[in-house]
Amino acid sequence: MKISPCDLERMPQRYRAHFINSLTGFKSANLLGTISASGVTNLAMISSAFHLGADPALLGFICRPPSVPRHSLINLRETGFFTLNHCHETIFRQAHQTSARYPRTVSEFAATGLTEEYSDTHPAPYVAESRIKLGLKSLEEITIQRNETVLVIGEIVEVLLPEDTLGEDGHVHIELAESLCVSGLDHYHQTHSLGRLPYAKP
Amino acid sequence: MKISPCDLERMPQRYRAHFINSLTGFKSANLLGTISASGVTNLAMISSAFHLGADPALLGFICRPPSVPRHSLINLRETGFFTLNHCHETIFRQAHQTSARYPRTVSEFAATGLTEEYSDTHPAPYVAESRIKLGLKSLEEITIQRNETVLVIGEIVEVLLPEDTLGEDGHVHIELAESLCVSGLDHYHQTHSLGRLPYAKP
Repeated sequence: MKISPCDLERMPQRYRAHFINSLTGFKSANLLGTISASGVTNLAMISSAFHLGADPALLGFICRPPSVPRHSLINLRETGFFTLNHCHETIFRQAHQTSARYPRTVSEFAATGLTEEYSDTHPAPYVAESRIKLGLKSLEEITIQRNETVLVIGEIVEVLLPEDTLGEDGHVHIELAESLCVSGLDHYHQTHSLGRLPYAKP
Repeated sequence: MKISPCDLERMPQRYRAHFINSLTGFKSANLLGTISASGVTNLAMISSAFHLGADPALLGFICRPPSVPRHSLINLRETGFFTLNHCHETIFRQAHQTSARYPRTVSEFAATGLTEEYSDTHPAPYVAESRIKLGLKSLEEITIQRNETVLVIGEIVEVLLPEDTLGEDGHVHIELAESLCVSGLDHYHQTHSLGRLPYAKP
């Protein structure tokens, strides 16, 4: 079936959110960990983290328009550091629950029963239950004028991962760590490897 | 195990590319279809497409630094339109093969045996074999100064999809269409649904 611009325009807001969010394909499932200047931790489920470059090691993620209060973004601006923690099957319900609107004084760690973990060398909180965890420094915010979303660019400064997931050539077998993916706003999926393909030549 | 900034610095270039590309989690697997002003089509595998907003219906994807010639980006600038086509198991080897460096005069459709398909209402080529296909208008390019990658922002103007994948609430069951996901540079995965979760409330 074909969905035309008119069909898109006629979609009610919630329907449209489900529809459009499904279209890009599978997305990463990460818990974004931050801490405020006064020491209150925050945890937020995000599915928008994407690779931006290997050297320097950069990634980006999207925050919704500033009209919606985003505690993570406020914390990031205050302290400059964050973590990304892969979700797996045992924690994805708790991870999803972090998307509820808790007041800023409530830590989603406490509210959802996930455990804070700290590295000596990184100020932002990791999720102890997660298996692949990235420590990042916030480098830059770019506001997308068109819809007032904010693209946050971070540099990966440390990585915690199970040794058996790291391949000889540097590839991390994230399926072995049981990392999940998301489709649309609320659909979670496990993966099943079809294998790796060799570097393509004409 | 912990990977420190020093460990990251010491990684050889190719090892580092595999490693860092694996860290954000699972990524979407899309074929980017474009056509040049002189009518040569191009197809490129991309794993960086991400949701940017539902109203207007926006998504973004990343192009590597302009020092590397990117035929897709040149075509986009010439014609203003593109398509994104989900990969599934039957076509992922051909999809991966589009990443080989063909000269600009060669269409990756012909080179990989994938079939061009056109909608009456969209100028860029779709992939006939794909099941979920988006027609987009290029709106804007944002250069990320830090590493000279280019973020292309597109608006979804039409969608072709199998009717049985579209749920009552607008959610598209992309697993039913057998869409795949990617990890790292070259690892392809099928998915297995763990189900949808309800809207979270405190």
